[in-house]
Amino acid sequence: MTANFELITGGTVTSPEGFSAGATYAGLKTASNDALDLGILVSEVPCAATALFTANSFKAAPVLLCQQQLKDGKATALVVNSGCANAGTGEPGLGDAIMMTELTAERLKLPPKNILVASTGVIGQRLPMAKIKAAIAKINLSEDGGHDLARAMMTTDTAPKEAAVRVKGYTIGGAAKGSGMIHPTLATMLCFLTTDAGVDKVFLGEALRKATDISFNMVTVDGDTSPNDMVLLLANGRAGSEIIAQNSREADNFQEALNQVCIKLAKAVAADGEGATKLIEVTVSGAATATDARSAARTVAGSSLVKTAVHGSDPNWGRILAAAGRSGARMAASKIDLFIGDICLVRGGGVLLFDKARAAEALSGREVAITLDLNLGSDQATAWGCDLSQEYVTINSQYTT
Amino acid sequence: MTANFELITGGTVTSPEGFSAGATYAGLKTASNDALDLGILVSEVPCAATALFTANSFKAAPVLLCQQQLKDGKATALVVNSGCANAGTGEPGLGDAIMMTELTAERLKLPPKNILVASTGVIGQRLPMAKIKAAIAKINLSEDGGHDLARAMMTTDTAPKEAAVRVKGYTIGGAAKGSGMIHPTLATMLCFLTTDAGVDKVFLGEALRKATDISFNMVTVDGDTSPNDMVLLLANGRAGSEIIAQNSREADNFQEALNQVCIKLAKAVAADGEGATKLIEVTVSGAATATDARSAARTVAGSSLVKTAVHGSDPNWGRILAAAGRSGARMAASKIDLFIGDICLVRGGGVLLFDKARAAEALSGREVAITLDLNLGSDQATAWGCDLSQEYVTINSQYTT
Repeated sequence: MTANFELITGGTVTSPEGFSAGATYAGLKTASNDALDLGILVSEVPCAATALFTANSFKAAPVLLCQQQLKDGKATALVVNSGCANAGTGEPGLGDAIMMTELTAERLKLPPKNILVASTGVIGQRLPMAKIKAAIAKINLSEDGGHDLARAMMTTDTAPKEAAVRVKGYTIGGAAKGSGMIHPTLATMLCFLTTDAGVDKVFLGEALRKATDISFNMVTVDGDTSPNDMVLLLANGRAGSEIIAQNSREADNFQEALNQVCIKLAKAVAADGEGATKLIEVTVSGAATATDARSAARTVAGSSLVKTAVHGSDPNWGRILAAAGRSGARMAASKIDLFIGDICLVRGGGVLLFDKARAAEALSGREVAITLDLNLGSDQATAWGCDLSQEYVTINSQYTT
Repeated sequence: MTANFELITGGTVTSPEGFSAGATYAGLKTASNDALDLGILVSEVPCAATALFTANSFKAAPVLLCQQQLKDGKATALVVNSGCANAGTGEPGLGDAIMMTELTAERLKLPPKNILVASTGVIGQRLPMAKIKAAIAKINLSEDGGHDLARAMMTTDTAPKEAAVRVKGYTIGGAAKGSGMIHPTLATMLCFLTTDAGVDKVFLGEALRKATDISFNMVTVDGDTSPNDMVLLLANGRAGSEIIAQNSREADNFQEALNQVCIKLAKAVAADGEGATKLIEVTVSGAATATDARSAARTVAGSSLVKTAVHGSDPNWGRILAAAGRSGARMAASKIDLFIGDICLVRGGGVLLFDKARAAEALSGREVAITLDLNLGSDQATAWGCDLSQEYVTINSQYTT
């Protein structure tokens, strides 16, 4: 494929024209005084908006509210906090979420119905609304504010996750947070995507679904999904280009550029999984169907035994085959080829006399590539995960309720 | 239900009449010189035999061979080794498995077609057949040999798993090994069950399927299934009682006694999961369907976030609801009651002002009970798992390939 877009160094969710953002410390995170934990993202003009939400039937208040707010396919701004998920808080929690949109509407002089809200953090606690009210009034917005917004979304994330690409005539940007409770579907936690392209509402929704399917829905950290998961895409049309719709000449370019932003953020989420020291990229090729390829790749990436073996740089190919074997994907044991990095460990189902030291070396980097060719068909998929470390257990056995 | 059977203290797989067993150290496990790693179980007379095998499509050689051997529903003896799984070994591995049955047949003066074989341990290595041949000749059989057999099955297990119950007129016994790669279905690794009751072949298969469904299929340690999983039930009729069939008066008693042996072994497997310090018992009641109850219970028991919270004695009820929420079970957030031990944390979907110190105490014992009442229907299920500790990661990042 020809590269019709370029990655913007230092790009973020406010890289597209007409978006600004800002964040402050409201006192929701106990971690440190200079942490950011409340942010606003806003477009100069109303946006076409589409979102995907957690499949978990235990849904947080902000998710329930956003599902309502987005029924008209429009939004102008978003307020997000970390430190408290506003989940498991019932009707009072829904009231808090509504109040967050109202306070933000007041601050931005916009109608509340144009404001979305997202929360991430501890489940089951009410939001301290007085602190939030004081903080929203303090937030300064700027065109470079996406970096602060990305930091304000972090919980146990160790780094903000941002990306943007420039396509001819328009830009797509995004910010995400991940860390724990990460599993298809949705594999992400929170991800806010923006573009200054003008995009038809129907196409916008389809493009987001397709991009999410090969990015956030292919990431697994710990097999858990959160009540707060949300991927949002806002298109404000400020670049002044033609409206992109399903049959536009630009549709494929837009899809591909959006895919790349989502994959970059999804990989960043996987690499920064709780306690992770390595990113694991699992590619399954030669599958009989796309579903088989996706299922096998995700199951290998999510296997605790594969994750611990990668953590110990142990070329334990048997665990990889055993994980693929329980995925439900069609496999013929005698046809499988398995690679770690570029080292072939198994060929036609038989283990080779591979160089264990070289294989261990291929497992010891920050990025580990596992490739499984089922040699049954032509479908392929890639999933991302991370190693499982003692640190994961430490983080999660001490996380405060 | 009235207790029509009693647990036999110190009972094992050779407690039923006419079964004997023995084990020796063949040198397959590197752990210690006095470890047992090869065992034989034999009945005086041919048995009606039924087994359930791993659903993993990557099946080990002994599983493939046993599936063949059991087509006639008969078996007399079993040979089992630990230290090497004989999985991922292709045609040569199948040859080794066949040779194990032939060597055992020679030792026992029985036809090879009456011998079953099971292996557990490292995947992808060939069995050292010379060592196995020498060891099989050395094994001494006795009516008390079930204890040695149970020890010879152990890999990273820290204790043998044995149980037996006496029903009026006959006995049911069993031995199991678990530890890693434990997840429905099958949740067990290896489990050998015996009875001296005479049991009709068709009923024997149904009874084992039912017992397994509420025991081994409700245990999860790490979400992985092994290529070697196998639950075997042998009935030799030596107690001289009436043949038990589907419509026998004794059928329900036999089923219930078998259930209890399987549940006892399944709980022992969960409690001894790799790195486990606590057994977690999750009961979901008030579900709309049995499938919902099973799915919710297993998902909670298998959630890495629930497991780490239990490890840290943290009453993180949000993670429990979030895990149930992604299980696919129907839930109404406003109807859920949640208990840890006998302490109610959530009532009608709302969190109570529970005593955190008491809840933490209920989480700090060797057995932790989590009960979720969905208040939607009348179906109920129980699943077992264990906490996730730093030790799990250490064991599995250092396990040799």
